Amino acid sequence: MSKVTKDIEAPLAKVFRYIEQEKNNFVENLKNAVSIKSVSADPNLRFEVLKMMNWANNKLKILGAEVELCETGIQVMNNEKIELPPVLMGKLGNNTSKKTICLYGHLDVQPADISDGWSSEPFILTKRDDKLYGRGSSDDKGPVLGWMHAIEAYQQTGTELPVNLKFIFEGMEESGSIGLSELLSKRKDTFFSDVDYVCVSDSYWLGTEKPCLTYGLRGMCSFGVEIKGSSKDLHSGMYGGIVFEAMSDLIHILDKLVDHKGKILIPGIYNDVEPLSEKEKELFMKLDFNVDNHLTDIGVSKPLKETKEDLLINNWRKPSLSIHGIEGAFSGSGFKTVIPRKVIGKFSIRLVPNQDPKKVSDQVKSYINSIWNSRKSPNKLKIIQSNDGEIPWITDPFNSHFMAAHRATEIVYNSEPDYTICGGSIPITLTLEKITGKSVLLLPMGAGDDGAHSQDEKINLLNYIEGTKLMAAYLYEVSKI
Amino acid sequence: MSKVTKDIEAPLAKVFRYIEQEKNNFVENLKNAVSIKSVSADPNLRFEVLKMMNWANNKLKILGAEVELCETGIQVMNNEKIELPPVLMGKLGNNTSKKTICLYGHLDVQPADISDGWSSEPFILTKRDDKLYGRGSSDDKGPVLGWMHAIEAYQQTGTELPVNLKFIFEGMEESGSIGLSELLSKRKDTFFSDVDYVCVSDSYWLGTEKPCLTYGLRGMCSFGVEIKGSSKDLHSGMYGGIVFEAMSDLIHILDKLVDHKGKILIPGIYNDVEPLSEKEKELFMKLDFNVDNHLTDIGVSKPLKETKEDLLINNWRKPSLSIHGIEGAFSGSGFKTVIPRKVIGKFSIRLVPNQDPKKVSDQVKSYINSIWNSRKSPNKLKIIQSNDGEIPWITDPFNSHFMAAHRATEIVYNSEPDYTICGGSIPITLTLEKITGKSVLLLPMGAGDDGAHSQDEKINLLNYIEGTKLMAAYLYEVSKI
Repeated sequence: MSKVTKDIEAPLAKVFRYIEQEKNNFVENLKNAVSIKSVSADPNLRFEVLKMMNWANNKLKILGAEVELCETGIQVMNNEKIELPPVLMGKLGNNTSKKTICLYGHLDVQPADISDGWSSEPFILTKRDDKLYGRGSSDDKGPVLGWMHAIEAYQQTGTELPVNLKFIFEGMEESGSIGLSELLSKRKDTFFSDVDYVCVSDSYWLGTEKPCLTYGLRGMCSFGVEIKGSSKDLHSGMYGGIVFEAMSDLIHILDKLVDHKGKILIPGIYNDVEPLSEKEKELFMKLDFNVDNHLTDIGVSKPLKETKEDLLINNWRKPSLSIHGIEGAFSGSGFKTVIPRKVIGKFSIRLVPNQDPKKVSDQVKSYINSIWNSRKSPNKLKIIQSNDGEIPWITDPFNSHFMAAHRATEIVYNSEPDYTICGGSIPITLTLEKITGKSVLLLPMGAGDDGAHSQDEKINLLNYIEGTKLMAAYLYEVSKI
Repeated sequence: MSKVTKDIEAPLAKVFRYIEQEKNNFVENLKNAVSIKSVSADPNLRFEVLKMMNWANNKLKILGAEVELCETGIQVMNNEKIELPPVLMGKLGNNTSKKTICLYGHLDVQPADISDGWSSEPFILTKRDDKLYGRGSSDDKGPVLGWMHAIEAYQQTGTELPVNLKFIFEGMEESGSIGLSELLSKRKDTFFSDVDYVCVSDSYWLGTEKPCLTYGLRGMCSFGVEIKGSSKDLHSGMYGGIVFEAMSDLIHILDKLVDHKGKILIPGIYNDVEPLSEKEKELFMKLDFNVDNHLTDIGVSKPLKETKEDLLINNWRKPSLSIHGIEGAFSGSGFKTVIPRKVIGKFSIRLVPNQDPKKVSDQVKSYINSIWNSRKSPNKLKIIQSNDGEIPWITDPFNSHFMAAHRATEIVYNSEPDYTICGGSIPITLTLEKITGKSVLLLPMGAGDDGAHSQDEKINLLNYIEGTKLMAAYLYEVSKI
């Protein structure tokens, strides 16, 4: 990678020293945050999400922020109404001569249980080889704490915060951010009126060694294909040969979605995919990305494409379709000879510029209906869509906002950042861009092998601490734009 | 149905009156048996299976039987060793001038939870409209209690039991009867040496109104197709387009197993299927079977075959393949955007005379391997077989043993029995036939809509009480052969 050494200005050097000194306390804070099981997908753990939001609320208060826990209403889950966790909104500083930066992060996490194959309890932050293992360590409690610690470092070293800050920390990101965009839209002319830049820290480095700035995200559509065969589960001995089985109908549809090389078989789905610009191709060539390491880390021997560039284009600038599983069928270990009465196959499609979720959804439905019509099964088909889908996002990585983050990265890591796209979706990015009309930047803290959403999620101690410095440096550099 | 009215001989009439009088007590006993959660598939409920076996052991002791709880060793489940429940073996009477009948039943049950869609708690026997709902009510605690109550009726009315009895009641039937055939084989020359006839009560009427005798069973082979793609679950945004997904590989294989009309696509699988004899065809024509009622009960509108005969041939004398589900994939409600690391598709094939499980297993493996080879996926395939498979069974329904059961049925139900085959498998049938070399008969107690293995399993009060009388009458009639 291209080595760059920048002089660190005195105020920032002081802030960095503090962060270095407080390392252990910062890890302790992360341990506390991880211990709260704020799984937003589980209604029985909703109180933990609430606890988490209150915990963060207190932290911001201690830093002197004006805070508000904003109610977002109720959610219907398994036919029960449950309260949504509040969104934590706050502000710190109102010096009109300073820039105002809006920071976004989330405090809810994906489900996790040691029985899923974790090496240590997912909700007990566990250090092994300078890596901090725990659910939410990297996605996204570590980065949220990073911002808090960066502010603390300015304050405790008597260094004036170079910018005004606004905070949006939510507790429903892993469950579709229900209610968030409505809430934020209402505050377009109040909370957001003086925001100059938006920074989201909820993505990852491409690899494990080089920092990056993220200028694009894929969108997503999720679908459920429901086939109902009978009113009850049936014994496969008593009814095998008697009924048209829902499961084989479903399997047939799912098998028609994607070919063995990952090509999506839905007609027209590639029509709107935007080709790469020449300038973007250059960024791709520069990327410091080791395919072998990336695959070794996840135990995969062969990737879908041969070269680094083709592989990243496939993940960043091409749609992909993944089949996640089947609800209603037997999923335990061992053998159960049942013909399930109703099964729902779940799959999702990641979208890229300029694909439109609405149009893709129409293509999916019409394709599945056509397969179904030729199947001639007497069973009942229903296509379920999880929500309206998430629109893909891409921005200009050469604007002044990105340049400031670029300089901050060089200061902390002595290296130019890579410019990456994230294969996942962070719908808030688009929402914040729309509401503020300002530049949004994704500033990753964690490494590419952190395993967000997976077993043994972790954040490297290095990323956690240097990432906190990067946040401090980013605020410093943005103030100079 | 052909109505037959037989005079009931005095001793039997007395026995029948007692059964009628004790109806409520017999239901109470079933309630107690159902309340024991003897799910053999769940290692955490193994102690309940043990409790159930002890409960039955005491019941038989009270009836004066010599009993033995026979250890069958240990079982490895999820890499842990757990003790198998004992098999309850017993004898009652040793008058060498009497016939000796060996009775088989099982006291373990399929898993059940109200959240699966039961209308009432599965382990609380609940009476609605003269139906007794509860897991195991029909499969197979009701029939086991039927034998005990029939004996009680003889004893309490001072009527001499017309036969000697031997009992084999096990607690692992729903989990492959592990260890049972080894145990029984060892007792070929002791326990089984004087057995004249064997009676198994663990099947169901064909429909809901006419009793039947069962002279055949399908066999079964169960398979797991395991595809391993990566060493951990992956985020579909971060890795969609990067990796060959295990799930789409698996779906592809499963989709190649059976066509939309239920025809199995595995080459050669129909080669050994024995055609129906003329005599058997006549039995099929006589069957009192209402396809519409049968389907309405399970909420199915259209069967795989048009006529009653073709449909029953398809269920009884043709193999069928059912896909049960996928282990390792997301199976919850809602949406989780995961690429599962390892998935295991489970399916089973029901076998008919003269199919050989070993040969079928070879055909399955060779077929799946050939699909896999043309798929050219870098993922890892493993084909798992649950056990050696269960051989199909068929016997002569016109022998003297069946004729005795025929007369008993006429006495109790005033109707000729139907002669049926059961689409399911009861491997003990074949084992007992082999060990004793004697005629085995399947004498069903429950109705065709009892929903064994399903939600809302029940036994009709009528079947439970008349079925107990039938058992008493069967012992009476067999003694006259």
